[in-house]
Amino acid sequence: MSTYVLVHGAWHTGAQFAPVAAHLRQAGHTVFTPTIAGNRSDDVKTTGLAEAIQSILDYLVENSLSNVILLGHSYGGMVITGVADRIPERLRRLIYWVAFVPNDGEALVDMVPPDRVAILEALAAGRGDGSVVLPFQVWREAFINDADLETATRAYELLNLHPFRTFTEKISLRTNPAEMVLPKSYLVCTEDTALPHGAWRHPRLSEKLGLFRLVQTTGSHELCFSDPARLAKAILEAGRD
Amino acid sequence: MSTYVLVHGAWHTGAQFAPVAAHLRQAGHTVFTPTIAGNRSDDVKTTGLAEAIQSILDYLVENSLSNVILLGHSYGGMVITGVADRIPERLRRLIYWVAFVPNDGEALVDMVPPDRVAILEALAAGRGDGSVVLPFQVWREAFINDADLETATRAYELLNLHPFRTFTEKISLRTNPAEMVLPKSYLVCTEDTALPHGAWRHPRLSEKLGLFRLVQTTGSHELCFSDPARLAKAILEAGRD
Amino acid sequence: MSTYVLVHGAWHTGAQFAPVAAHLRQAGHTVFTPTIAGNRSDDVKTTGLAEAIQSILDYLVENSLSNVILLGHSYGGMVITGVADRIPERLRRLIYWVAFVPNDGEALVDMVPPDRVAILEALAAGRGDGSVVLPFQVWREAFINDADLETATRAYELLNLHPFRTFTEKISLRTNPAEMVLPKSYLVCTEDTALPHGAWRHPRLSEKLGLFRLVQTTGSHELCFSDPARLAKAILEAGRD
Repeated sequence: MSTYVLVHGAWHTGAQFAPVAAHLRQAGHTVFTPTIAGNRSDDVKTTGLAEAIQSILDYLVENSLSNVILLGHSYGGMVITGVADRIPERLRRLIYWVAFVPNDGEALVDMVPPDRVAILEALAAGRGDGSVVLPFQVWREAFINDADLETATRAYELLNLHPFRTFTEKISLRTNPAEMVLPKSYLVCTEDTALPHGAWRHPRLSEKLGLFRLVQTTGSHELCFSDPARLAKAILEAGRD
Repeated sequence: MSTYVLVHGAWHTGAQFAPVAAHLRQAGHTVFTPTIAGNRSDDVKTTGLAEAIQSILDYLVENSLSNVILLGHSYGGMVITGVADRIPERLRRLIYWVAFVPNDGEALVDMVPPDRVAILEALAAGRGDGSVVLPFQVWREAFINDADLETATRAYELLNLHPFRTFTEKISLRTNPAEMVLPKSYLVCTEDTALPHGAWRHPRLSEKLGLFRLVQTTGSHELCFSDPARLAKAILEAGRD
Repeated sequence: MSTYVLVHGAWHTGAQFAPVAAHLRQAGHTVFTPTIAGNRSDDVKTTGLAEAIQSILDYLVENSLSNVILLGHSYGGMVITGVADRIPERLRRLIYWVAFVPNDGEALVDMVPPDRVAILEALAAGRGDGSVVLPFQVWREAFINDADLETATRAYELLNLHPFRTFTEKISLRTNPAEMVLPKSYLVCTEDTALPHGAWRHPRLSEKLGLFRLVQTTGSHELCFSDPARLAKAILEAGRD
């Protein structure tokens, strides 16, 4: 049996992985669902990427976790890449679930179409506390397109203010993902449109992993809400040896 | 419960939506399946795109329809875009089912690979009455590739002579689809090869919608014949709020 | 009922098609699973592509097979293209299962990303007997990503030394596949990553067929091991008239 650490995406906390974690535990695995610094309700919203990475690195060390299958969702791909660069000896495999894959010196916004970056910047500027929030209509149509309206609304109410600087701060890596010797999986949800199909998401992101295992399942960017059981099944196919 | 108006593609009439409409009605919805001007058996085959659009616009007005979920299949995407530009106040959402998405000044043939346009032109020239007809082998291999031969043959016998000028006449729009404030869905059949995979269909067409909801299902361009129940299920996921 | 001849890919023999063939026979079809020259355990490993093609051509002639649905898997696409060019009168349809589609004068390595060709060349050079062998980790992650480790290991142990010259020798064709009048199907496994997604596999390979029937199923490049029943079902959809 394996140890899974599930690292959430922007606007989420670890708590939203609870239904997925329950399925993984039913299959006999140990599961941790930490919340990244900057996403806790009482965090200031000026947190940057280095601090976010450090918080998950600390979590693994403080809990003495090893042989970890480390999953990152979306923005969480930035975080797990930073962790893997620093403490690969604690990891068994990386799973990028519809996640960003950075090389040294890249920020998340470098992997997003410029017109969408402009929208995020405008949203962040409109708030003024360092955070950015997704408009409901964007969430409903482009992030959780596979759910009914009630599920989409309920999930939206769980989202938190995300620190925008984690999107704009460049990552510092000693080793790019393609050169990491760790096994790596990329988990695609085929109806995910958080990044536009075509030139921006898989395979543009996954090919930065070098050798990797592709797992695909139907579903949106937010399959954790719309079908946690299906997501758990796909995670197990991505995480096994 | 919602009101659906299903606008067929080239070579079809509204009658071929009957099995899909039956499934939608079973789910409690009101469904209309008009036939576009130019596709009725006694129509002259010199109808152009503006006339085709006007016929569906008139249908909505004459039947006093409002709050309509308006679906267009393939060529029908040209028609619903024109209708949405003229009477958006009667619509609740647009659904493009493997459909063309035109901007102002574009004709359908501007979204088709030039070598296929040449084939269509040759087929139209060979008839001489303004119509174009698909050869059976193209229909069977590239349009209804997911059905058995009997279904493919039976469906082919239902097709009508399509007015070629609806493919070559440029659309006139006040507002391009990306700027329309209406909610929009794009419904992809993953084995659809009526347009070649790669640079020509989704996402090249869907991205012209701006913010939109992606729904995908397995099936060919002619899922209305090969699995109407599956198509109806996908339409409901595309059409809900 | 039809006659299927299943032509394996690199590192395989016909024996590994036995589970798939059993499903096709249950459906009433006659099935042959020859082994290409160069892949038999006692073959010298300097066999080239022309010799490989000749061996399957001879098999069809010696067994007096006609009206054949001829399937090629991966490298087997090179072989069936060569056979179809020489004896089209014996064939009913070609099925390319995640297979290479060559035009006259192309070698398999011309359709593989240069960095992967370099890896194959290095692997071949390291052996020195003309053969090339896949490292287990590449097999497990990129070829049979949909199976569990036990299945992946068991299948790996069945692989044979593949003659590298069949990858580098250019094919000689009188007629390119797009101009062949034979019906053609392309069968995609959607999680196949033996060739990278994006610019290298479907649709880049399938579009060289001209008019063709697309059939897709979930699964890896090695669905013959991970789910022979699902592969057989897809083959029947690809092979029927």
